[in-house]
Amino acid sequence: MIKEPTLILNEAIARKNIQTMVQKAERNKIALRPHFKTHQSHEIGRWFREYGIKSITVSSLKMAVYFAEDGWDDITVAFPVNVLEIDRINLLAQSINLNLLVESPEAVQLLNKQLKYPVNVFIKTDTGYHRTGVDPTNYTLIDRILEEVEKAELISFRGFLAHAGHSYDARGIDQIAQVHNESIARILSLKEHYKYRYPELALSVGDTPTCSRMEDFSGVDEIRPGNFVFYDLTQALIGSCTEEQVAVAMACPVVAIHEDRNEILVYGGGVHFSKDRIVEEKYGTIFGKVVTDDGLGWGRVVEGAYMKKLSQEHGTIYAPKEFIAKYKVGDIIKVLPVHSCMTADLMKKYLTTEGNTISMLS
Amino acid sequence: MIKEPTLILNEAIARKNIQTMVQKAERNKIALRPHFKTHQSHEIGRWFREYGIKSITVSSLKMAVYFAEDGWDDITVAFPVNVLEIDRINLLAQSINLNLLVESPEAVQLLNKQLKYPVNVFIKTDTGYHRTGVDPTNYTLIDRILEEVEKAELISFRGFLAHAGHSYDARGIDQIAQVHNESIARILSLKEHYKYRYPELALSVGDTPTCSRMEDFSGVDEIRPGNFVFYDLTQALIGSCTEEQVAVAMACPVVAIHEDRNEILVYGGGVHFSKDRIVEEKYGTIFGKVVTDDGLGWGRVVEGAYMKKLSQEHGTIYAPKEFIAKYKVGDIIKVLPVHSCMTADLMKKYLTTEGNTISMLS
Repeated sequence: MIKEPTLILNEAIARKNIQTMVQKAERNKIALRPHFKTHQSHEIGRWFREYGIKSITVSSLKMAVYFAEDGWDDITVAFPVNVLEIDRINLLAQSINLNLLVESPEAVQLLNKQLKYPVNVFIKTDTGYHRTGVDPTNYTLIDRILEEVEKAELISFRGFLAHAGHSYDARGIDQIAQVHNESIARILSLKEHYKYRYPELALSVGDTPTCSRMEDFSGVDEIRPGNFVFYDLTQALIGSCTEEQVAVAMACPVVAIHEDRNEILVYGGGVHFSKDRIVEEKYGTIFGKVVTDDGLGWGRVVEGAYMKKLSQEHGTIYAPKEFIAKYKVGDIIKVLPVHSCMTADLMKKYLTTEGNTISMLS
Repeated sequence: MIKEPTLILNEAIARKNIQTMVQKAERNKIALRPHFKTHQSHEIGRWFREYGIKSITVSSLKMAVYFAEDGWDDITVAFPVNVLEIDRINLLAQSINLNLLVESPEAVQLLNKQLKYPVNVFIKTDTGYHRTGVDPTNYTLIDRILEEVEKAELISFRGFLAHAGHSYDARGIDQIAQVHNESIARILSLKEHYKYRYPELALSVGDTPTCSRMEDFSGVDEIRPGNFVFYDLTQALIGSCTEEQVAVAMACPVVAIHEDRNEILVYGGGVHFSKDRIVEEKYGTIFGKVVTDDGLGWGRVVEGAYMKKLSQEHGTIYAPKEFIAKYKVGDIIKVLPVHSCMTADLMKKYLTTEGNTISMLS
């Protein structure tokens, strides 16, 4: 029985999301190296293994160590290498195939000075998101990085990697396609330029919006989406998925009802959901959408019922009067999260709709 | 040596913040029942004990259990009681003086049905924040709640409690004073109304902005500020404190430098800082402010250097060219957080500027 804020996971939906992405990769004859920062769980990782996945992506060295402990031996840490964590890098490089990201000659030098075991590097490439990475037209900088890589006995050049994170600003398939096509064109120009010098170089791309909706990945070697395993309201807003494909919901106890202003106060706040928000045309800024209850699981999104405000432990749900009339203190309300990766990271475990508890990295 | 995102705590500043609030309560002859949701740490709780604090506030029953384990025996859970956690309530009520919040006759009935040991209740009162609580002019509802309390053998009425959280929208002392005066007037009217029936009834108020800046608490029995132990950029923006009174800073490794757009990318994102934000006139929406480095501690805020954007693990710092020129990959940058309670909740431990690690509730 649910007594406090609990992250509910529908395994069947998550498995279907995994299977769909695996099939898309197979159709396109590209490798799928899913990003495990979304679920951060040994058990959910093993579901991917059942669909043939052998190599993965993570966002921190700590997460790489956690998954290496469960037998994953080909891991890309999709974050500009933090050379201060050289002990974890050496620990991993000693036993697994470790792929790191570099984007400056200085990072390669620092890495090289302290490495004890071989690693591969991708050059992190900025294909339009402008968070980080090298400009794909800046051959001078790329050549300087490659020069340092050549000098380093334990570092092998693997290829170019990009994350078109600006796809999160897209709304609908046309805008997703625009981000995808521009981003792919930019990284393909690098393969064109360097393929004679490095015939084996790989191109790695992949964010959930483009991987979910696009069909043409010609020239690309692998994709790295992560969020798709659960999806969330952000992805539904972008158009990567439907609300029915969202595999996680937060269950929150009702602690007070304010009928006069159409509000229900639940136990479930920013320390449970995270404070990620979306702006919906109908509702303005929201932090979640209410779904109907269905045993341990949930049903459809309730029109007009959403998480309006979050403070540390409190969540304020706005809902139609007829919805509010059905609830009383001590009941549970289920809410689809805005950003499933952040919510899972806070909740540290899952309760499946079959009643099983699944642990994750803590 | 710092290798990954680390929450640094300046014990001297925190102790000074505690001492200042203790002295204010003494001057006003009111009890100080500090809210421990900010630090969530046994060790920091013990610092308060050294200044004579004997009773505390928390925001969840889990947190109450954690602090009861360290000998705190008078705890208010400042959250509308979650009756589903009756096991924790009975566990606590058996051994400590437990104060719960109620705001409906239904919650009192549900509680009464399952209680095995005595508890006290405050009626949660809405003095203008409109998050939750009863309208202080709704005597009909309050009388119905009191009627249920009278019937319940194990439940004693303690008084009225309010949290004027709308003080967080105030900017400057005049606006803080306006929130304070209105809120206090509303809760005092309840004491006036009920004091003959309940001569012992207590009034409990207190948010960090009003408790930090106001001097007159006449008629009030106790204050419950929490954030003041660390303060943060939100409180500095409101005018509750200066930036020099902020007792925590995040230390983040530099992983990439983008001189062309005045940016430094650090390891330190939404899973470390939380995504709480403030809007500053000079900078727009920001997630932190950069401070100068000073051994294990930090110095002053650097003009024009702030956290511009956060994703899951990445933080983008915008800074003047002359600041950026001083940094290289592998260095550490320190950043004052927007909301110290949320940042501490995510980081789960502190490193003091004296080099000690302090644990917290996990």
